[in-house]
Order: sequence, then structure tokens, then C-alpha cells
Amino acid sequence: MSTTGKVIRCRAAILWKPGVPFSIEEVEVAPPKAKEVRIKIVATGLCGSEIKMLENKTSYLHYPVILGHEAAGIVESVGEGVSTVKTGDKVITLFLPQCGECASCLNPVDYLCTERKQSKSGLMSGGTSRFTCKGKPVYHFANTSTFSEYTVIKEISVAKIDAAAPLEKVCLVSCGFSTGYGAAINTAKVTPGSTCAVFGLGGVGLSVIMGCKAAGAARIIGVDINKDKFEKAKKLGATECINPQDLKKPIQEVLFDLTGAGVEFCFEVIGNPETVEAALASCHESHGVCVIVGLLTDVQLNISGSLFLSGRSLKGTVFGGWKSRESTSKLVSDYMAKKINLDPLITHTLNLDKINEAVELMKTGKCIRCILLP
Amino acid sequence: MSTTGKVIRCRAAILWKPGVPFSIEEVEVAPPKAKEVRIKIVATGLCGSEIKMLENKTSYLHYPVILGHEAAGIVESVGEGVSTVKTGDKVITLFLPQCGECASCLNPVDYLCTERKQSKSGLMSGGTSRFTCKGKPVYHFANTSTFSEYTVIKEISVAKIDAAAPLEKVCLVSCGFSTGYGAAINTAKVTPGSTCAVFGLGGVGLSVIMGCKAAGAARIIGVDINKDKFEKAKKLGATECINPQDLKKPIQEVLFDLTGAGVEFCFEVIGNPETVEAALASCHESHGVCVIVGLLTDVQLNISGSLFLSGRSLKGTVFGGWKSRESTSKLVSDYMAKKINLDPLITHTLNLDKINEAVELMKTGKCIRCILLP
Repeated sequence: MSTTGKVIRCRAAILWKPGVPFSIEEVEVAPPKAKEVRIKIVATGLCGSEIKMLENKTSYLHYPVILGHEAAGIVESVGEGVSTVKTGDKVITLFLPQCGECASCLNPVDYLCTERKQSKSGLMSGGTSRFTCKGKPVYHFANTSTFSEYTVIKEISVAKIDAAAPLEKVCLVSCGFSTGYGAAINTAKVTPGSTCAVFGLGGVGLSVIMGCKAAGAARIIGVDINKDKFEKAKKLGATECINPQDLKKPIQEVLFDLTGAGVEFCFEVIGNPETVEAALASCHESHGVCVIVGLLTDVQLNISGSLFLSGRSLKGTVFGGWKSRESTSKLVSDYMAKKINLDPLITHTLNLDKINEAVELMKTGKCIRCILLP
Repeated sequence: MSTTGKVIRCRAAILWKPGVPFSIEEVEVAPPKAKEVRIKIVATGLCGSEIKMLENKTSYLHYPVILGHEAAGIVESVGEGVSTVKTGDKVITLFLPQCGECASCLNPVDYLCTERKQSKSGLMSGGTSRFTCKGKPVYHFANTSTFSEYTVIKEISVAKIDAAAPLEKVCLVSCGFSTGYGAAINTAKVTPGSTCAVFGLGGVGLSVIMGCKAAGAARIIGVDINKDKFEKAKKLGATECINPQDLKKPIQEVLFDLTGAGVEFCFEVIGNPETVEAALASCHESHGVCVIVGLLTDVQLNISGSLFLSGRSLKGTVFGGWKSRESTSKLVSDYMAKKINLDPLITHTLNLDKINEAVELMKTGKCIRCILLP
């Protein structure tokens, strides 16, 4: 029996308030309104930025909320006026939309669709939610809310992908992989033969390494305080790895010693103000580029002005600088064509019911990416 | 009678210790040693960075010292092994050397000759000074020390220029003009049709405006709290000027209102940590580039991490990103060919004896550049 046009009752992981674990609850998911799509989530990653939000009780969230933004699924039904996807299509969810019509989307060098700002309210168009639980409305998150069996997303936040794609793998194109890989390729524009350093070797950091390698970097130095991550980093392209806790000097001085003049491209994939300064200080004084990939919400950067008495650059990046809808479809095709590899990033797979276990796994550092199956 | 090989007695402006005015004194200038050049200074600018050093008592200086780094002069004599200039040549002094042999000089994308670091000691090769006053050695500054009738400089810090060049004008190529103009052309790489903003409309800021105009910017917004500077800024290329003190909202919000999405290139030409943050926040979120041109010594930048949750860049620059020796000679030729104009930057000319008056003039904001004639 078709569910189209009807409310769907299903399970979702709800965060009722800051500082508590997720609760698995039965929720009601309303049918999609105009220009919206209802999706059956098949696989969703648990991203480091969500772990940060759980720990830091960021001001960014409205409660109760359904988190989750790194997912792949199948279109269950579409609202009025939806023309680019149809029931049964395999799709990737996009926390960064691509409306195709705003000044940003029409500008070839701009990838930050202005429609993204609407998601901050936690509500869909019309200022309403498509989720309720125990009679109360539940807020959306990042245009996606994928920690649920079903979710409703705007058409502009959904990318149709290859019908043969394995969703439990390509869900990583929805955030972690694309963010890291694109930070190297698009944001830093790593050059062939260059020297790179990557601070933080989680799923996104490893994707940065893959991006540096794809761009032809000659030397890729992985930096992490967890040496268990070094083996995989080397397999994916790191030419050497360093644990700052093993050093007698600050990491930036060691990187200068190792390279002679600093690294040309440095990536901070942690989101820690102190590490950002060390990463910037590790860069070549004339033309070194430091990209902040780690999430820096509600923090101040305190950086010595003297680091800018040279030609260094400090850059931000969102979703690896990709125009989201068009690029994710292409990245999935690249995966199918074996041009990129997502499999090594996935170390664990759990049922969505075990989401709190997944959070703990991520905190221990034993897990790169844990895929949750609703 | 030739002075070659002899000590020259002449006048110089000495700073005996932090926080006192300059003293005009008789000094002894030793003959140039190997790879050094003794220069008769014909004209020297007083740069904003020196005013900052006088006010902030920076840790960067050794006392007593002869400051001055923006000058043009004539080679009086050369030391052993000097091959690129000879007695009588017109030259520009260079606080940023270009040795032509280090890894930086050999790298086409690197302009920060590694020999520059040697100047921090305030001493020439062999760890000695070429200046004495009242029997005491006096420290050099920035490889140049141009507030003197004669100075000794390394050959790699001197650029030979067109014999017909008017030294009292082209001395500005030695720092202020090249720094600002190059920040737009080389560091920011301003694109045709783009929107720019320049915070601080002193000599360097006006040179940034000229660089933005030369690069084909469509809109150049001058920002200064001294509206007396607006007329000249507009004459040199600013399409509009704003006084932040006239606004009810922060300057960054006004620039967003004016441009719709922020400026593509923003230049901070003040060296104030608060203005740096405002300049960065004024930039387009996807691809805006903020260049710090103002001198930031001994200060911390405190910047909201959220400004990097987008594709913005914050960059430093030194001497406008030019490879110094080869570029200054060419910039002087461009001046002679009327491709660039330095004359509007010069508002005052005083004898070196009046250097303390020049400092006061700069502080009042009534003076763009004051040229001192030893």
C-alpha cells in the first residue's frame, strides 16, 4: 500500500535537550509540501561535527531536534512542483543546498547557495516542521535530519545519484569525504609536487589526504595524537606521520625542520583554535595556505599578528567548496568508476537504535566512520 | 676628493632609546665591506610603520638605531665583489633583499628571500655596524637605515634604477607604493569587474586603490575615519568613500548592504586587530579575500571562528609580494613611462633635520607622505 500523501510513523533518534543522549522514539513524518521530497533513509554517517555539537551544547540548535546530515536514501514521495527527482530514485542528502537560481549558484566561483541560511531556523518553508513526536513538533537540522527512517528535505537539498550505487558506502559523499577531499582539491588547490600536512586523521582528515594525493602532492605529513590512525593514513597516501606528543618541540617547528621552509598546504581537521594557530605557523612564509576544515563554532581564534607578516593565507571551507547537487552526483559516479575509494573510511556499521554506542565509539578514537542503518 | 675607502662624517637622525624624539647627530659611516654598497641618500620617505614603531616601542628594534627604509640615492662606493651596481648609479633601497640564490629566490612563487632574516640583528655581516656616533656603534635597521646622509647596505638590498628617475619621487617605490599596489595586484590578485574595499587611506591605502584600479576592479570603496582623505582617494580610483563614524551599523554590515553579498577583496591598511576582523567580516562568504597590509607587530588577532565557516581567506603580504630587486627597477621604469603615478602620494617635503616635525605631520592625518631630504 502506498504511503504517498500520508503521514508515516517510524523510528528516529531525537535529542530532547542539550547534554542528554539520543532517544529512539516513534515519530510522525508529514508528507512533503511543495518543492519538498520525503526520503527513506538507507544509511547515515555520524559526523564529527555532530559529536562536537553534543559536547559543546552549541547555540546553533533548536530542541527537540533530529540531527544527521550525512546520508543516502530512496525517494518515497515528492511534493508539488518537484521535477528533478521521483519516487524510487536513489539520492544523497545535502546540508548545503544548490538552488541553481540565486546569485551564488549563478556565479561559477561561488558555491555557498544563499538558500542555506534558511536551515538555521530548524523549520521548513512556511515556518513549520514535518516531524512530530508525542504530539510536539520536532525541529529539523541542516536541511537534512537523517537520524530517522524517513525525513523530509527540500528538493534543492537532494542530489540524484547512480541507481547502482551502494548507499551504505556513498552516504559518505554527503559530507565527510567530499568535505575533506574538496578542501584539498578546491579550497587549497593543492599543486603537483607540493608538501602538505594534515592535522587530525579522522574520516575527514583521511579524505583530505586522498585529495592531496589525487592532486599530486609529493609529500603528505599526517599529524595526530592517536598513533593508531597512522597505518590507515599511510595506506591512503600519507608519506609519513607524526604524533605531536612524541616531540620535544612544537609541531610547527618540527614541520619547519622536516621541510626546510614549512609546508605549502596545511589542513586543520580538528576545529581547535590552538591547532589552527599551529597549522598556520607550519605553513611556508611566502605562499603557504592553511585551510580550516574542522568545525569552529562559538569559539574565538587567537592568532599572533606576526604570522601574517608574510604571505601566508588562512582559509575556511564548507563542504569542500563543491557546488553541492552537481558535484555529489559526479563524486558518486567517480566512486562507481573506482576513481575514488570510500570503503577504508568505514570501520563500523550499527543499527540506528545503537546511535549512543556509535557516539561513544567515535569518542574513543577507535572508529573512523560509523554508518547507522535506520 | 674621493671619499672611497674612507670613513664619511655626516648627519643622521638617531633614535637613542624607545619613546624619545629623533636626534640629529654627526655620525661616522664606515666604508662598505665585501658585497656591501655605500649610498648617498637623496630622498627618504617616512613610512607609517616607523610611526608605529615610535609609538609602540616594539621589541623589534635595537638601540641606538638609525631608522628609515623607503629611500632612493646614488652609489658613493662599493665593497669588494660587488658587481651589479657601481659608483654613480641611481638606486632604490630594499628592506626586503633578493639574493637570487636562496631557495626562495629560485622559486618563482616565493618572494621572501631568506636573507631578510639577517636584518633582525641590526648588524651587517661579521656582526658589526657600519655606523658610529660619539664613539658608540649605532644599529642598522631593516638592511637600510636611510635617515642619514650616507648609509651602508648589502648589494642584495639595492636595486639599480633608470638614471633619469627623479629620486625625490621614486623613493616611494622603495616601500609604500609597491607594498600597496602589489597587495592588490600580486597578493589579492584582484580580478576585473570585482568589488573591493580599502580600510585606511594613507599612502599605502591609496596605492592599494591604484592597484585595484589597474587590475580592473569595478567598484572600489574607500574606508577611513578621516573624511579629508576622500577627495584624493576618489581621484586615484575609489568609486565611493565611507566614514565608519558616520554609520549607525558596523562597517561590515554596511558593506554587505551596499554590495549584496560582501566585497570580493578587502584590504586592511591600518594594522589594527579590530579593523582586521571587520575587514574579514566584510568579505564575500564564498570567495572573499582579506589582505592584511597594515603592520601587526606584537599584537594578537582575536577573530570569531565563525568567520571561517565559509570560504573566506585572510592573507598577509610583505612588500606587495614583489621579488624586490627585479620588480622595483621595473616599477621605476613604469613611473618614467607614466604607467603609474607616485606624485599624488607626496604632500610634504622637509629637510631631514625636521624629521620630528614630519612625525607630527603624519600623526595629524594631514600628510599622506612626507619626503625627507638629507
